[in-house]
Amino acid sequence: MSRPHEIDALIDLMARLPGLGPRSARRAVLHLVRKRAVLLLPLAETMRKVGEAVHDCAVCGNITTADTCEICADPARSNGEICVVEDVADLWAMERGGAFGGRYHVLGGTLSALDSVGPEDLRIPDLVERIGREGISEVILALNATVDGQTTAHYIAEELAETGVRLSSLAQGVPIGGELDYLDDGTISAALKARRGL
Amino acid sequence: MSRPHEIDALIDLMARLPGLGPRSARRAVLHLVRKRAVLLLPLAETMRKVGEAVHDCAVCGNITTADTCEICADPARSNGEICVVEDVADLWAMERGGAFGGRYHVLGGTLSALDSVGPEDLRIPDLVERIGREGISEVILALNATVDGQTTAHYIAEELAETGVRLSSLAQGVPIGGELDYLDDGTISAALKARRGL
Repeated sequence: MSRPHEIDALIDLMARLPGLGPRSARRAVLHLVRKRAVLLLPLAETMRKVGEAVHDCAVCGNITTADTCEICADPARSNGEICVVEDVADLWAMERGGAFGGRYHVLGGTLSALDSVGPEDLRIPDLVERIGREGISEVILALNATVDGQTTAHYIAEELAETGVRLSSLAQGVPIGGELDYLDDGTISAALKARRGL
Repeated sequence: MSRPHEIDALIDLMARLPGLGPRSARRAVLHLVRKRAVLLLPLAETMRKVGEAVHDCAVCGNITTADTCEICADPARSNGEICVVEDVADLWAMERGGAFGGRYHVLGGTLSALDSVGPEDLRIPDLVERIGREGISEVILALNATVDGQTTAHYIAEELAETGVRLSSLAQGVPIGGELDYLDDGTISAALKARRGL
């Protein structure tokens, strides 16, 4: 194929982004070349900056450009609650809701025998240590309702049992705006079991 | 939202790529941050290189890092045929097929009264000039089978009428592997009108 090798290299790299395949990577690259001044060069520069400046928060694992992230640096968020999430995308999802006023602990994944991810890969020892250091009263496990997520939640619950901290997890049930006819059986069973008096 | 502003800037830019929305841009950016060394920094560097090195071929409008693109620079492809395409994506599609041995002329779009795109925006004067200069015998109009594509093809045909060059367009009909039941009526009619003796 008679393409400049820089273009081929860019297509190969773009095709490795989630949500883009070879065809959409080609389309994206042509779009970038057409919008050189307003998109391609700003994107190159912003990626370079992010690559140089962004790293994990030393306390919670959130991404930040400072030593500790904005949430960990905010004294107003030191309310004795830690919300444990799998990754930064989940932290962002929680923050979009705006309902949680405490701090986070980003595991960076879930336990997985298949991918040989153990507790030491997941900032779980850090979490135990934080509970003592920060005087935490409640740990909310906001892990995904998948097999790996729930396995990880169980493991963390066992690890924290002797710290005496209060443990909770997100409620399971019918999503807001959800229609029963479109929900899976597991969700309906869970919502029924956890039914509340009116 | 408590995100570093570099991350927000990167999400905004990524969301402007075709095929990515705000949600998939967030996912892509987190993926980039996680794969800093193998994806984020190489991508930044490759984008910078492409932005600096890649420009339009002075002859045909293909993208290239040299003065003229590889196809225009290849004497073996000077066979008197020019294939006219809308944009570089179409040139790539033709090259993937590998069935065409001549050179290209990339219009950079189609005539469009709505978007006020006129002939002078589309390298059509360049095309007329090339036909004389390069001693072209046949011009193949490989424009998309859309209203704008076909309007542009008609306009070019009129412009080239007095040059005496042979004009052709891609055949229309049933795609290879196509099932009649899934084809639109227009394609079936076109295929029937253009039927060939066995």
